Amino acid sequence: MARIALDAMGGDRAPAATVAGALLALGDFGSKHVIQLVGRDEIIRAELQRQLAGDFASRTADAARLQIVHAPDVIAMSDKPTVAIRGKPKSSMVVGLRMQADGQSDAFVSAGNTGAQMAASIFIFRLHDGLTRPAIPTLFPTARIPIVVLDSGANVDCSADELVQFARLGCVYAEDVLGRKNPIVGLLSIGEEPEKGNAVVKEANALLMSAGLNFQGNVEGRDLPMGASDRGPVDVVVCDGFVGNVILKFYESVAPMIVKLIGERGVAPEVLAGALETLDYASTGGAPLLGVRGVSIIAHGKSSATAIRNALHVAARTFETGMSAHIGQRIAQRAAAQQGVVA
Amino acid sequence: MARIALDAMGGDRAPAATVAGALLALGDFGSKHVIQLVGRDEIIRAELQRQLAGDFASRTADAARLQIVHAPDVIAMSDKPTVAIRGKPKSSMVVGLRMQADGQSDAFVSAGNTGAQMAASIFIFRLHDGLTRPAIPTLFPTARIPIVVLDSGANVDCSADELVQFARLGCVYAEDVLGRKNPIVGLLSIGEEPEKGNAVVKEANALLMSAGLNFQGNVEGRDLPMGASDRGPVDVVVCDGFVGNVILKFYESVAPMIVKLIGERGVAPEVLAGALETLDYASTGGAPLLGVRGVSIIAHGKSSATAIRNALHVAARTFETGMSAHIGQRIAQRAAAQQGVVA
Repeated sequence: MARIALDAMGGDRAPAATVAGALLALGDFGSKHVIQLVGRDEIIRAELQRQLAGDFASRTADAARLQIVHAPDVIAMSDKPTVAIRGKPKSSMVVGLRMQADGQSDAFVSAGNTGAQMAASIFIFRLHDGLTRPAIPTLFPTARIPIVVLDSGANVDCSADELVQFARLGCVYAEDVLGRKNPIVGLLSIGEEPEKGNAVVKEANALLMSAGLNFQGNVEGRDLPMGASDRGPVDVVVCDGFVGNVILKFYESVAPMIVKLIGERGVAPEVLAGALETLDYASTGGAPLLGVRGVSIIAHGKSSATAIRNALHVAARTFETGMSAHIGQRIAQRAAAQQGVVA
Repeated sequence: MARIALDAMGGDRAPAATVAGALLALGDFGSKHVIQLVGRDEIIRAELQRQLAGDFASRTADAARLQIVHAPDVIAMSDKPTVAIRGKPKSSMVVGLRMQADGQSDAFVSAGNTGAQMAASIFIFRLHDGLTRPAIPTLFPTARIPIVVLDSGANVDCSADELVQFARLGCVYAEDVLGRKNPIVGLLSIGEEPEKGNAVVKEANALLMSAGLNFQGNVEGRDLPMGASDRGPVDVVVCDGFVGNVILKFYESVAPMIVKLIGERGVAPEVLAGALETLDYASTGGAPLLGVRGVSIIAHGKSSATAIRNALHVAARTFETGMSAHIGQRIAQRAAAQQGVVA
C-alpha cells in the first residue's frame, strides 16, 4: 500500500484536472493505495463536491481512500524555485514533500512549477551520496518499445561525469519502473564513432566504456524514433538537459503537425505517403556551406538522383543570387557599424 | 548562366545517383546552366554510357552542356578531413573546389565526406572576414513553410558569438535562397524567457538583442514543427551543431516511424488518431525526479486528468519497486567498486 500525495494546486489545469485524475486513479487502485490531495482545503472540497455531486453515494468508497491535506500557499508557475521554497513553506508542494520526509506519505506527484519541485525535492530529500545532480527521465515512444531519455531538462550544463550519473539513474529507472533487465545504454551524439560529439560527450563516451554499465556506445538522433541503433536496441539514452528538452518538446509537437499535414490532404494511404514525403531530406537536396567565399553545396551522403537534382537547383540559386558575396558584405557592414558605434 | 561542378564520386550511391541527378537537372535547366562532372573520367563516361544508352541521340543536346573534368583521386567517407585534403589534391572534391577558385566554375556540389568538404572549402575559399566558423543550414519542413535551422552539424562546440554569426549567415541564406524578406530569427532554447538556456545560449540571447537582426527571442523544440512560436512565425532558428544535428536526424527518422505505426494499424482516420496518440505525453503521465532520496514525480504542466492518473500510476510503481533506494545502493556500490580498484 502506498500513500501518494498529489499537489492538487499544481499545473495549468488544477484543481479540475488534479481532482479528476485522483478520482480516476482511485478507481484503478481499488483498495490498494491512498491518495492525499494536498492544497487549499476549501478549493479541493469545492472541486470534489462539484465532480462527485452526481454520484456521490456510489463514490464514497473511493472518497474514503482520498485524504485532504490542507496547505494554504500555492507556488505559481512563474515563481523562482528557491524563492518559492523559502517564501512558501506552507505551499502544497513543500507540504506534500515534507509529509514524505516525515514518514506520513510514500510518494509525491506534481504538475506544478518543475524548477521549484526539483529544488524543493533536493532541499527536503537531499541527493543520494555520490550524485551531484538529479535528472528527469522521459519515456519516448518508438517503433519498438518506449525508451528512457534523460536528462530531459533538469540540467542544462552538464559535465561528462554527470552524464555518467544520468546513465546510472536511467538504468535503475528502466529496471524498476519499466521492468527492463540489464538495460542497454546509448549516449546521444552526432555519430556512432566514439570520437564524434562535443567535448563533454566525447569525454562521457570514454567514461561510460569503463562504467560497468551495459553501454552500447553513441546513438544518433535518427535512432530515437526507432528505439535502436544499427548495433541493436537501446533502453536508455543519455544526453544533457538542454538537448533532451529540445528533443522532447520537438517530439511532442511533431504528431500534431503530421496530423495537420494529413488532414489537409485527406487520409487515403497514397496521399499519406505524399504528405510525409515533405519530411524527406531528398526534396531539399543540399545545403550551401555558409561563410566560405564561394558556393559549396553539401548534399546528404545517401543522396538519390532526385536529391542530387535538387542540390543542383540549390547550387544554381545560391550562385545566381550572389549569396556568398552578400554574406561578406553583411559581415563587413556589421563590423563597420560596430566600429561606428565605438568611434 | 552558372557552371556547376558536381562531385561525381561523392556519396554512398555515386556515381549512379550523381550522374542520373546531373541528367535530370540538365533537363530542368535547359540551356541555362552547365554541369561539370568531376571525377574519374573512365568511370563517369561508363556511367553516362550506361544511363544514356537507350536514348543517346535525343540526349546529345543535354550532353553538350555536360562537361567531364578528370580527377583521379577519390576522398572516402571514412577519410579524415585534413588528411584527405593534403593527401588527395587531385580528388574530385579538391579539384572541383579549386576550379571555382581559379574562375573556371561557379558552384560546387558534393554528397561526399562532409567534414572533408567543409575543411577543403575553408582551405581553398577561406572564410569571409569577421567569421570564425562556417555553418551548415538545414531546411526543416513545418506545418507552415520550411524554416532554416543552423548550424546542423558543422560546429559541435560553439561560442555565443558564433551563434550570432550563424544567425547572420542564416538570414542571408533565407533572403537569397528562400526569398524571405527581413527574416525573423529565433534562438533555440528550453524556454521562451531570455534567462532560460545553457550558458552559451543565454549569452547569445543577449548578443542577439543588439545584433541588428529581426530577432524574435528564444524558441523551443515544440516550435520547430510549427515554424512559429507563440509570438509568431520564424524563418531562421539558430543552435549549435550538436543540437542541430541531433534534431535533424531525429526529424528525418520520425516520418518512417509514424508510417510504420500507422501501417500496423491500417490507415483509417480513426485509428490514425489512435496511432499518433502514443506520441502524446499524457499517456506517460509523469516522470520521477531521479537522484533524490524519495519519490517525486514530475508531471507535465498541461496535464489532463488522464495524465495525472498515469502520473499516479508511475508514483505507485516507483514507490513499490523501491527505486530510490536502489539508486542509492547502486551509486554506493559503484563508489565501493571504484575504491576497491584504487585500493
